[in-house]
Amino acid sequence: MDKTIAKEAILKAKLETGETWDSLGKAINMSPVWLASACLGMNSMPEDKAQAICEILGLNSELVPILSACPHKTWDKAVPTDPLIYRLYEIVGVYGETLKSVIHEKFGDGIMSAIDFSMDVEKEENPKGDRVVITMNGKFLPYKSW
Amino acid sequence: MDKTIAKEAILKAKLETGETWDSLGKAINMSPVWLASACLGMNSMPEDKAQAICEILGLNSELVPILSACPHKTWDKAVPTDPLIYRLYEIVGVYGETLKSVIHEKFGDGIMSAIDFSMDVEKEENPKGDRVVITMNGKFLPYKSW
Amino acid sequence: MDKTIAKEAILKAKLETGETWDSLGKAINMSPVWLASACLGMNSMPEDKAQAICEILGLNSELVPILSACPHKTWDKAVPTDPLIYRLYEIVGVYGETLKSVIHEKFGDGIMSAIDFSMDVEKEENPKGDRVVITMNGKFLPYKSW
Amino acid sequence: MDKTIAKEAILKAKLETGETWDSLGKAINMSPVWLASACLGMNSMPEDKAQAICEILGLNSELVPILSACPHKTWDKAVPTDPLIYRLYEIVGVYGETLKSVIHEKFGDGIMSAIDFSMDVEKEENPKGDRVVITMNGKFLPYKSW
Amino acid sequence: MDKTIAKEAILKAKLETGETWDSLGKAINMSPVWLASACLGMNSMPEDKAQAICEILGLNSELVPILSACPHKTWDKAVPTDPLIYRLYEIVGVYGETLKSVIHEKFGDGIMSAIDFSMDVEKEENPKGDRVVITMNGKFLPYKSW
Amino acid sequence: MDKTIAKEAILKAKLETGETWDSLGKAINMSPVWLASACLGMNSMPEDKAQAICEILGLNSELVPILSACPHKTWDKAVPTDPLIYRLYEIVGVYGETLKSVIHEKFGDGIMSAIDFSMDVEKEENPKGDRVVITMNGKFLPYKSW
Amino acid sequence: MDKTIAKEAILKAKLETGETWDSLGKAINMSPVWLASACLGMNSMPEDKAQAICEILGLNSELVPILSACPHKTWDKAVPTDPLIYRLYEIVGVYGETLKSVIHEKFGDGIMSAIDFSMDVEKEENPKGDRVVITMNGKFLPYKSW
Amino acid sequence: MDKTIAKEAILKAKLETGETWDSLGKAINMSPVWLASACLGMNSMPEDKAQAICEILGLNSELVPILSACPHKTWDKAVPTDPLIYRLYEIVGVYGETLKSVIHEKFGDGIMSAIDFSMDVEKEENPKGDRVVITMNGKFLPYKSW
Amino acid sequence: MDKTIAKEAILKAKLETGETWDSLGKAINMSPVWLASACLGMNSMPEDKAQAICEILGLNSELVPILSACPHKTWDKAVPTDPLIYRLYEIVGVYGETLKSVIHEKFGDGIMSAIDFSMDVEKEENPKGDRVVITMNGKFLPYKSW
Amino acid sequence: MDKTIAKEAILKAKLETGETWDSLGKAINMSPVWLASACLGMNSMPEDKAQAICEILGLNSELVPILSACPHKTWDKAVPTDPLIYRLYEIVGVYGETLKSVIHEKFGDGIMSAIDFSMDVEKEENPKGDRVVITMNGKFLPYKSW
Repeated sequence: MDKTIAKEAILKAKLETGETWDSLGKAINMSPVWLASACLGMNSMPEDKAQAICEILGLNSELVPILSACPHKTWDKAVPTDPLIYRLYEIVGVYGETLKSVIHEKFGDGIMSAIDFSMDVEKEENPKGDRVVITMNGKFLPYKSW
Repeated sequence: MDKTIAKEAILKAKLETGETWDSLGKAINMSPVWLASACLGMNSMPEDKAQAICEILGLNSELVPILSACPHKTWDKAVPTDPLIYRLYEIVGVYGETLKSVIHEKFGDGIMSAIDFSMDVEKEENPKGDRVVITMNGKFLPYKSW
Repeated sequence: MDKTIAKEAILKAKLETGETWDSLGKAINMSPVWLASACLGMNSMPEDKAQAICEILGLNSELVPILSACPHKTWDKAVPTDPLIYRLYEIVGVYGETLKSVIHEKFGDGIMSAIDFSMDVEKEENPKGDRVVITMNGKFLPYKSW
Repeated sequence: MDKTIAKEAILKAKLETGETWDSLGKAINMSPVWLASACLGMNSMPEDKAQAICEILGLNSELVPILSACPHKTWDKAVPTDPLIYRLYEIVGVYGETLKSVIHEKFGDGIMSAIDFSMDVEKEENPKGDRVVITMNGKFLPYKSW
Repeated sequence: MDKTIAKEAILKAKLETGETWDSLGKAINMSPVWLASACLGMNSMPEDKAQAICEILGLNSELVPILSACPHKTWDKAVPTDPLIYRLYEIVGVYGETLKSVIHEKFGDGIMSAIDFSMDVEKEENPKGDRVVITMNGKFLPYKSW
Repeated sequence: MDKTIAKEAILKAKLETGETWDSLGKAINMSPVWLASACLGMNSMPEDKAQAICEILGLNSELVPILSACPHKTWDKAVPTDPLIYRLYEIVGVYGETLKSVIHEKFGDGIMSAIDFSMDVEKEENPKGDRVVITMNGKFLPYKSW
Repeated sequence: MDKTIAKEAILKAKLETGETWDSLGKAINMSPVWLASACLGMNSMPEDKAQAICEILGLNSELVPILSACPHKTWDKAVPTDPLIYRLYEIVGVYGETLKSVIHEKFGDGIMSAIDFSMDVEKEENPKGDRVVITMNGKFLPYKSW
Repeated sequence: MDKTIAKEAILKAKLETGETWDSLGKAINMSPVWLASACLGMNSMPEDKAQAICEILGLNSELVPILSACPHKTWDKAVPTDPLIYRLYEIVGVYGETLKSVIHEKFGDGIMSAIDFSMDVEKEENPKGDRVVITMNGKFLPYKSW
Repeated sequence: MDKTIAKEAILKAKLETGETWDSLGKAINMSPVWLASACLGMNSMPEDKAQAICEILGLNSELVPILSACPHKTWDKAVPTDPLIYRLYEIVGVYGETLKSVIHEKFGDGIMSAIDFSMDVEKEENPKGDRVVITMNGKFLPYKSW
Repeated sequence: MDKTIAKEAILKAKLETGETWDSLGKAINMSPVWLASACLGMNSMPEDKAQAICEILGLNSELVPILSACPHKTWDKAVPTDPLIYRLYEIVGVYGETLKSVIHEKFGDGIMSAIDFSMDVEKEENPKGDRVVITMNGKFLPYKSW
């Protein structure tokens, strides 16, 4: 039940068919970001979505239970090295205390859930250079007193 | 020129005056997220903004050069412990490779800048529990070949 | 607004008055575990509870805003050294994958919240040696697909 | 005598037979949490229990000595990354000193054993969202003076 | 209630009075190793022993509650640097798996307790160079199945 | 010349022949702890001892030069995770400074050698639970002034 | 799409054909430093350049999509060990704060981009020993206020 | 002989006098990069240069021996956090193996010295955004065979 | 071009032929320490020396370009575990600041090169136990001011 | 009994009197390297030597018991940053396995003691640049079998 097998099969088929996260997302009516995360092994797919992806990409349906299994989410290094990912880590380091202060001011004591959570990526065209717009949307969870 | 001095003075004055990042941001016509980051010592403030903040909060203008100095941005631990900040770190860990794949698909090889960058935090009201919406907006920087 | 000041004042007063987490918890109608965590600086107290604690322990009410502020939760070392705390860390290491497998079987893909969460400690008397019983109760949060 | 072999055989057979930790635990009269931990390679099984599990799952009895061998308990990273397991780690970080203080108050100087120890997981139904209830039960071990 | 205060007072008085761990241990009828560990802040002392030590060393009895408090046991670095202490760490590294194998062979699955535990240090005279003999004595704790 | 090969062959043969570290040690007139350490790859064996072990266990004498080669002693993690081994590490952490102070008092400035060193493990029967007794015996090495 | 395959094929062909980074760079009209980085898997190559390299080195054009894919940039250790690379790391450690101070003085608050970036290496002949001259050229990115 | 004292005195005087690394460098006929590094405590200054700096900035000549002492060069974290300095670290990570390969091709086996070394920073004006140009110049040191 | 292949072939041939680092060093007129380092993959060999070693040990001359390639010098752990190597690391830790102070006193500000460097190991016979004598000889490199 | 106090007093007096490690070593008939290590807090001094040093440097004899106490040897970072000390660390990394192999060949299985150990530093004049010669002399300790 190794999710790496599904990931590699999907990446290969995606390249051969010319599908994109965008086209695949539209085809199964899900966000491309969520779809990519599930194909890369970081989320579990509902069975019907997994079935649909396998059909579109011409993959063996033996991958369905693998895609719908609960993943073990792991990453390699405490501090990422790839520049695209490091910049996100840096934003957490530079703005973490800022976000904490602003969220507490707006919501009180608690956190933004990373589980009841969704995320989108958009391209904002700009003559000085296009911009990446990432939107994170997570439920606010207040701390419980007991 | 220790930014900690300015940070503590501002937090104390903010509590006493009842000002918020939101009200201060509006007063000086800047985003509350940026303003908070600059007051917490993670960004430099243009002199006129620093002057305005000191006036609103009744602070000595000796803080102006401190607030407008270039900060040394540092954080304590490679993996943050505070739950609010850790959830953001976890999002980078869980979704880092996903974001890399989606951004490369949309933009080609390059990164989202964390320097030519802005960020907002909004509260989305929801009967099942309000939601935190964080929007990041960074210039796409393509890798140069030479 | 340093929570260490409140923590030290409370520990000193607790020793002098002979109060315990148990007696204090009963007096303000909260769990002794939650109360201890808030006094030790790891949770924020509602203002009325903070006021009550200060009165019982004869402490200056200037501590009230400190006790009700949102804490920055931090710990010193990735691997704890104190034997009592290390054993809890070891339980997470030894049984983490087991708990993951059992919870996924019972609830599906998701996690136990550490925010919408409570915990109790009881003493189970036993002729072969008393036993510590720790009960953790956290909301199950299913992963969102989007 | 590699416990990974037994683990993989059991997980595969469990999927094919539709057995669960719960049904297997009942069948051999042991807790599903303990059973899962032993099947995942983190505890040793008494030979009769190992024999029974192999029969129920239709596995070769060559796995019996592997299942009953003393495991080398190891985990990958000082700070776990999987969100379900991380939340448990976070609870130890946030509440470790609290538990230490409460247990010392109730029992004196000593620790809760992680060896003479058992654990259960229950589902508490709740209209606002079901809750995970984890109960840990460990012998109190007082420090010896000599 | 900082155990460092007691430690420093005791080390100073010990030097001035010429007492040794050995003479102090005999005087209060306890092992010098345990006594040293309690004076250095790594174990709690029964009140009568703490009282006796303060009297012998001419120390203020305000140290008694500090000496009898439950310590927070902490050490600085995962790998010790002082050569005397490093050699002990090295013995654990080189012989850890050996001790595990030998103890499992003699006792079955379980561990040697570090809590229900005592230790002695003796000097073995030897013409080729005296030898240090350290004896550790810990209760065997078998793993529980449940 | 990989010592892992010898280790695995010996563990397999030991299981099949029913020999123990104890019986093997007696047969070749060496301590079972030393013998185990050499078989597990952490010490080199004199050739005659290696020859004798191979004969008793019915192993190919090609293992003799492997068993008598100087090992590269290595361990995986700075902080061990297996509970039996961790307890030994914890003893070094908790009692390291104590042992340093007691040994300096008895012997002067220097260390206990981990090279000119032997160790034994005994079972002490006890109605309240048997006890593990580990004895370490190392030459005292005084620091040289020059 | 493993860039290691392309790297190994290129290094082997480079050795057999006697080509150098310099000669290859001239042949395709790119800098040898950039070319080496792309062949070693740390940058993506425009397709025509990848095609040209494969032709010159007599390599299968199946390597073209691998060479033009976006790399996952990773390195092994936070602190490099190879002396040539360590010296560069040391320069960052010793002169990092200096460069920060000098760049802020010349440019204001911001950074030198490592993405919109190029680098050259030249040999400066010198009778006392030739010198390595590394020139880095990166766009200055000012921090944005918002 | 704490270089931090000299550093702070110089930074304060530099701010008050309006001198820059550039103007100071010209005044004493040294590179502003070297001068900054020596003032920030990472290099030792020849006495006459230290004397000249103290005179220009109106500082007590007691700082001269501090400025000319050999520094202990240290930095805080294996991976820098400040974005300007991190980008330099990232360049070493991304291009380290490239530089190694190119330098070995041009010079043979050896390294670029970080001791017999100089560095300059220039501003390259550019309508698309000015560029930072860093030039490093270090003696090539061939490995010795013996 | 993997130096591990050459290393393993040489160690095997050395064992079979009975050659030693000493005898091989004499045969090719190089120091046994340097020779060992080059055979173990930590230095590059001039081609004629590599050719000579292959002939003496009866090895395929395909190893010559491997032996003369520039190595990537890497080691596994920041703190070595093998006792022989750890003692050297400990000497650097204990005496590092001492050596720094003594060398600066004798030579001024600078370092001992580890590149323009040679090392020898001798056995000093001594009735109380033979002694290892290691001599390091490295060029002093003064820091450059510029 | 803080050795830092003695260290600072000695360094100050050494600067004021113009004494050097060399002149002090000669005056008390000890090696300057050992003397420096004892003054810097990494070795204990025999009382007569400590007395002599205090007299030469005009220091209060209260420092004598501090200088003759057993030090707790500690260093800050697993990987040193100062270039002079790092080069020594690098030599251990690059040549550690080489020294292990050469010493085992010359002496059998065992180590060079870092306790029964002495070290000298000499300047070797050389027209191409003076050389630092470090000689380490440690007793060979063979592993004991038992």
